[in-house]
Amino acid sequence: MNFKMITEFDFIKKYLISNKKNSKHSLNYSDDVGLVDDKIYSTDTICENIHFFSKDKPYHIAQKLIRVNVSDIISKGVKPKYCLFNFSVGKNIDQKWIRNFMRGLKSDINFFKLNLIGGDTTKTSGETVLSLTIFGSLINNRFIRRSSAKSGDFIYVSGTIGDSALGLFCRKKKKINIIKKHKEYLLNRYSKPNPRIDLVNYINNNASASTDISDGLYSDLLNICRTSKLGADINFNKIPISNSAKVIISKYPKLKELILNGGDDYELLFTGKKGLDSNKNITKIGKMKKGRNINITDFDDITNLDGYKHKF
Amino acid sequence: MNFKMITEFDFIKKYLISNKKNSKHSLNYSDDVGLVDDKIYSTDTICENIHFFSKDKPYHIAQKLIRVNVSDIISKGVKPKYCLFNFSVGKNIDQKWIRNFMRGLKSDINFFKLNLIGGDTTKTSGETVLSLTIFGSLINNRFIRRSSAKSGDFIYVSGTIGDSALGLFCRKKKKINIIKKHKEYLLNRYSKPNPRIDLVNYINNNASASTDISDGLYSDLLNICRTSKLGADINFNKIPISNSAKVIISKYPKLKELILNGGDDYELLFTGKKGLDSNKNITKIGKMKKGRNINITDFDDITNLDGYKHKF
Repeated sequence: MNFKMITEFDFIKKYLISNKKNSKHSLNYSDDVGLVDDKIYSTDTICENIHFFSKDKPYHIAQKLIRVNVSDIISKGVKPKYCLFNFSVGKNIDQKWIRNFMRGLKSDINFFKLNLIGGDTTKTSGETVLSLTIFGSLINNRFIRRSSAKSGDFIYVSGTIGDSALGLFCRKKKKINIIKKHKEYLLNRYSKPNPRIDLVNYINNNASASTDISDGLYSDLLNICRTSKLGADINFNKIPISNSAKVIISKYPKLKELILNGGDDYELLFTGKKGLDSNKNITKIGKMKKGRNINITDFDDITNLDGYKHKF
Repeated sequence: MNFKMITEFDFIKKYLISNKKNSKHSLNYSDDVGLVDDKIYSTDTICENIHFFSKDKPYHIAQKLIRVNVSDIISKGVKPKYCLFNFSVGKNIDQKWIRNFMRGLKSDINFFKLNLIGGDTTKTSGETVLSLTIFGSLINNRFIRRSSAKSGDFIYVSGTIGDSALGLFCRKKKKINIIKKHKEYLLNRYSKPNPRIDLVNYINNNASASTDISDGLYSDLLNICRTSKLGADINFNKIPISNSAKVIISKYPKLKELILNGGDDYELLFTGKKGLDSNKNITKIGKMKKGRNINITDFDDITNLDGYKHKF
């Protein structure tokens, strides 16, 4: 998710990591998931006015809730199978909204072959808040952590990067000077993420470390680096960008930084041996290395460069 | 929980129960829990201004979040062991609040021997919303449903009933004409529920059906009746009431109905053979019967009686 007030990382570090009893099942909070027996667990919340707006189509909001959660489990090379849903109903929504929301939820539950095994409904006096907890069983008795990259591993991404954040830009800006089909493409990428369920076995069989791109390519790569205790070299020009993204960036060059910082793409970022980009629309963008910094070459935006060449 | 806009029962029935694929693991939504392999799962949300207030002690709010969830699992005769936490941080709380909240959370996680295996933190633009998802492994390969009461089973409750709702009354009313120790007892029962972890094995070994009292004795008994397809006779005078509850009801007789309707006691309501009230502060209050109505004897409040003698 974007817009976190306090990052999960800092929050957890400060208050919980001292509790050693938690380390086994929580993976010491080094990953987005927890592990109990043969299953991994994840949970994500989306809030009105932060991650969605009450005027958005409720059908799409439901799909977003399911998909951001599905993406977390898929990125570990595991198929999600069960979920629980917390529905805190805010004052801006009515029965019609709820009906359409539930249709979207049901549709995606069927699409991703999930079982909704429980939930809770309450009202709030303000905004709507939606949480999903999701879990699934390990494939081949393993899942792919984000902490297990090795120095020398290549860095790969699926699909194209930055579309969702550029879609959000289109949504917020009333008048925008690009042709309709590009705007619609980006808006659709923002409102309806497509978690890469098609790659779940590929990740399970091939990735050395993996995460989905939810906070933004740079942040999520930073998470792999931090938890794997490594650095990375990436080549900005290698990052795959859609035609629509190219069009909008040529009109609004400042948006270029969203390729690195824009969240909510729900594509996969993973590491592994040479040649994993030979098919499936996967692109090699760099290499893991010893050290503690991420170095980005070919990123010519001087105003932002400093931020991308630092020790952590 | 109290104050639900739409009951979980109606909500689920309307939108989800038609999905037959969900029936196995969700128990067809006839219970508060879901079942996957050897574990049962539950989730509960508490919202600012509905279930707590930002001026309440954050340490106690955290305990309430843990305890309402622990209570759900305990009432099934299962020990909760793992949890995931969704923290949607509202605008009224600051770092100090969060620090004290996390202390309460950690303290109760340790007290109930839970593992916090994951979570999510986001901000909201309004209220704070807190969800916990909790699960544990079956004891003796079984758990106690609320749908499995038999005609002729006796109905039992643990502890005393109504204290929490009377505590909420004390909290809301500024001037109240009872002596301090009674007020404090009731306030404490409201702010710090004590789920009956001491009875978990007793329930597992003896109860034919079981639920915790969260919505109120009458509502929760109604859930047992509905899902077990039975009726019930209960004797109002047999319902165990604390001394403090007696004192406040003698001053404010209208509060008597809170014994039936007040929520958040987190005591246990269960059915079973004769004699389960021989120890452990358990009281027999009635008997399950064929039919479709709950009959309450000795409840002399004429104005409210109609509501308690109806078919459902």
